[in-house]
Amino acid sequence: MKLYDFLPSGNSYKVRLLLSYLGIGYTHVPIDIMSGETQTPEYLTMNPAGQIPLLQLNDGRTLAESNAILMFLSEDTPYLPVNAFDRAKAVQWMFWEQYRHEPAIAVARYVSHYAPERKDELPKLQEKGRAALAVMDAHLAKSPWCVGAGPTVADIALYAYTHVADEGGFNLSDYPHVEAWCARMTEHPKHILITDEPT
Amino acid sequence: MKLYDFLPSGNSYKVRLLLSYLGIGYTHVPIDIMSGETQTPEYLTMNPAGQIPLLQLNDGRTLAESNAILMFLSEDTPYLPVNAFDRAKAVQWMFWEQYRHEPAIAVARYVSHYAPERKDELPKLQEKGRAALAVMDAHLAKSPWCVGAGPTVADIALYAYTHVADEGGFNLSDYPHVEAWCARMTEHPKHILITDEPT
Repeated sequence: MKLYDFLPSGNSYKVRLLLSYLGIGYTHVPIDIMSGETQTPEYLTMNPAGQIPLLQLNDGRTLAESNAILMFLSEDTPYLPVNAFDRAKAVQWMFWEQYRHEPAIAVARYVSHYAPERKDELPKLQEKGRAALAVMDAHLAKSPWCVGAGPTVADIALYAYTHVADEGGFNLSDYPHVEAWCARMTEHPKHILITDEPT
Repeated sequence: MKLYDFLPSGNSYKVRLLLSYLGIGYTHVPIDIMSGETQTPEYLTMNPAGQIPLLQLNDGRTLAESNAILMFLSEDTPYLPVNAFDRAKAVQWMFWEQYRHEPAIAVARYVSHYAPERKDELPKLQEKGRAALAVMDAHLAKSPWCVGAGPTVADIALYAYTHVADEGGFNLSDYPHVEAWCARMTEHPKHILITDEPT
């Protein structure tokens, strides 16, 4: 398999983290989103949405959307619940992540790092992001993981941008249950950092 | 089952449409999102995200996020592909819908109907929405459905706001393959309209 990927991207890190958990080898293809490499005709043929990450199977077929890739790779593994309702709850958290969490927390981080000209957007992004972190904190006060007794794709999806939320101006110590859950995530024996270059 | 629902909501309509396809009866609980009924303490206990639709099973458990509900209800039906890669492609389209399509096309419709004070946002929403419709049109030029040989949850998810895109200022006749696909969707023997009151 090939993973088209931008190292600082949390959406890409989700896939790298799951591939590490699963011990699956892959070819890492770095794509520089800042210099337009996702907008070339060749890339848009593979992913018309012009985004990373993109997974390419050995037969050439491609799969986009980080959380769809997580679901595909986690099928029949401990990271996707078998029970239909638990699986649906994991999926619920993943859709919530892409609708409520990522567009606030990841975008605040992006603006802070790469788009200073958009810094007027930060207060609203941070307000939305704090609301998302509060929803997570309330859930993690009652349950150690998103769903069930161990980490699933839902935890991986949410961890990716949560653990670097400080880079978007968020203070995780305001969310102690989120902070404790982040620490639990790092205890996985196959944990890798977002900055770890794939080998 | 109970469906907490706001009739004009495309996200809610997705669930009503699939329940109709499947011939599953349910209790319809109308929720007026405009008068704050999704923000009461009772409602937030059921769905901390404060959104409709919300599915409540007979044992009281609740499931949020329209596309997660679609996946849950479609398990082991013709509307969720059995083949792992095809299923992942359906999931890919559903994440794309919530990230690229709904935040532009549904929000443009919402602003046009309910939030005239936000009308300055419309040009940017419409630009993003046109880009999303162009991606759909290019795909539907090559394939009659999102994935495979018939409608799946991906088509249901995308149809919900696409077929009322004109209410957000979009002109579907600019996207002939999308328009033809919308017509195919209405040919399903169990088709219902977004305005049809659940019985």
